[in-house]
Amino acid sequence: MASAHSVKQALEQALGSAVALSESPHGPALLAKATHHAVFPGGARIRPHLVLAVASACGHDDPELSMAAAVALELLHCASLVHDDLPCFDDAATRRGQPSVHKAFGERLAVLTGDGLIVLAFQVLASVKARHPQRIAATIGLIAQATGAPEGIVAGQAWECEPKANLRDYQRAKTGALFAAATACGAMTAGGHAESWRPLGEWLGEAYQVADDIRDVIGDPQSMGKPTGQDVAHDRQSAARELGLMGAIQNFDLLVGKAIRAIPSCPGAPSLRALVLAESERLVPREILERV
Amino acid sequence: MASAHSVKQALEQALGSAVALSESPHGPALLAKATHHAVFPGGARIRPHLVLAVASACGHDDPELSMAAAVALELLHCASLVHDDLPCFDDAATRRGQPSVHKAFGERLAVLTGDGLIVLAFQVLASVKARHPQRIAATIGLIAQATGAPEGIVAGQAWECEPKANLRDYQRAKTGALFAAATACGAMTAGGHAESWRPLGEWLGEAYQVADDIRDVIGDPQSMGKPTGQDVAHDRQSAARELGLMGAIQNFDLLVGKAIRAIPSCPGAPSLRALVLAESERLVPREILERV
Repeated sequence: MASAHSVKQALEQALGSAVALSESPHGPALLAKATHHAVFPGGARIRPHLVLAVASACGHDDPELSMAAAVALELLHCASLVHDDLPCFDDAATRRGQPSVHKAFGERLAVLTGDGLIVLAFQVLASVKARHPQRIAATIGLIAQATGAPEGIVAGQAWECEPKANLRDYQRAKTGALFAAATACGAMTAGGHAESWRPLGEWLGEAYQVADDIRDVIGDPQSMGKPTGQDVAHDRQSAARELGLMGAIQNFDLLVGKAIRAIPSCPGAPSLRALVLAESERLVPREILERV
Repeated sequence: MASAHSVKQALEQALGSAVALSESPHGPALLAKATHHAVFPGGARIRPHLVLAVASACGHDDPELSMAAAVALELLHCASLVHDDLPCFDDAATRRGQPSVHKAFGERLAVLTGDGLIVLAFQVLASVKARHPQRIAATIGLIAQATGAPEGIVAGQAWECEPKANLRDYQRAKTGALFAAATACGAMTAGGHAESWRPLGEWLGEAYQVADDIRDVIGDPQSMGKPTGQDVAHDRQSAARELGLMGAIQNFDLLVGKAIRAIPSCPGAPSLRALVLAESERLVPREILERV
């Protein structure tokens, strides 16, 4: 499995090659700066690491393509954060411990930064020197499906604009879609069977969303790097509001268990299981239980 | 060359297959409606027709792929209009003779509609049943380059956020990039030499931008379907402001001439020349000269 360092390097390379960095003579410099601000420093980079972990479990026979998919999913995730933070949505002033893009660069550049990151994600995949180029279009298709409508993260955010929404549809699209795409793409880019790996991503996505709801209630803004208490402030549906805090934590544990059991049998399964457990402890530390 | 009817049909199909239409049980219905509103009714659909005209001149040996590229470029153009109309940019109340997307559906759905259309453009290309699938990634690469940073339409719009911008860089990215991609993709998808066809698109893009500047000064909002006088209102650089109206019209004629001479020699060249001339007359009718 690739290190955090190599994901960071691949993201830097994607931004450097396709986006005008400030030294470029012919691109708009503020857009380049805002784009960099949106991607660095990152969060846990959980989606790209998931792509690479699954690709590794499937034999990792096309590392460049797997890394391109990992980078694309992270760029799309960053794009969604930039647009979700806009004044018309969450109006969030901070993200990952620094000012949100619209706070630092203005609303117009925030809109364009999100747009540019979406495009860049597909550009990275289209221009990869893959060992198996015939897998590129299918990978782009998987990722587009997880991003757009009716089931991707754009649709997920759009459920917030509907008069009535089902919590499960909302969270599946808003969070689950990219997680399911991460495991499916990890397999697809490494020659594995994408659909067999999708359930792992779906359960992890649900678990992650519940963890996010829990952290929105319990976490303090400083350690989260973003405002907390947003679900109540924006009157959004959330597992912690629906099930109560203890119920949400029990649900989280249940979902992590389902994720672990959904890992298809393969030589890399034991290390993947360990990774999922470690990640679940990072997301909802047991010390939280002592506080509630 | 495909008819206006078939472009419309292909756009309808793209929206129907990948975006939740209102009858879909599992997608957010308002996003589907806003997306449809952003794409229909269309303008002149000049970019997709340009793709198909060049593909036809190059032998049209993969009509499904050429149509997918045509649809993708039109969807990206529509996405840029939706985001350009947002309150933080032009704050335009009307577009193509109807309320702009944010006026009809609110700002949040306008942001998401643009995002979803960008994703859909790449999804259409990734899922096309091409006769020559090895051309898909290269076509996606061309289109992404024309859309993102540092040289695509997103960068073009971002020049409006820079303290200083060169008019030529701005217009090349904001308008020229998609026109150049249209002719390059027309060739690429039909097995022609993309770069040989790019200059035609570049000159047409410049001509189109000058025509738009002229129409912004002269046109009346009703026949344009959008507000006019926007360049002065937003203190934007424009050919008509820089060269004066007569100078801009002379420049337009010059650019159309260059476009016509840039058509590579091929059996379809005469009909392409006629098409470019007819299009230029549609853009800047000679009757305008009588009014100035």
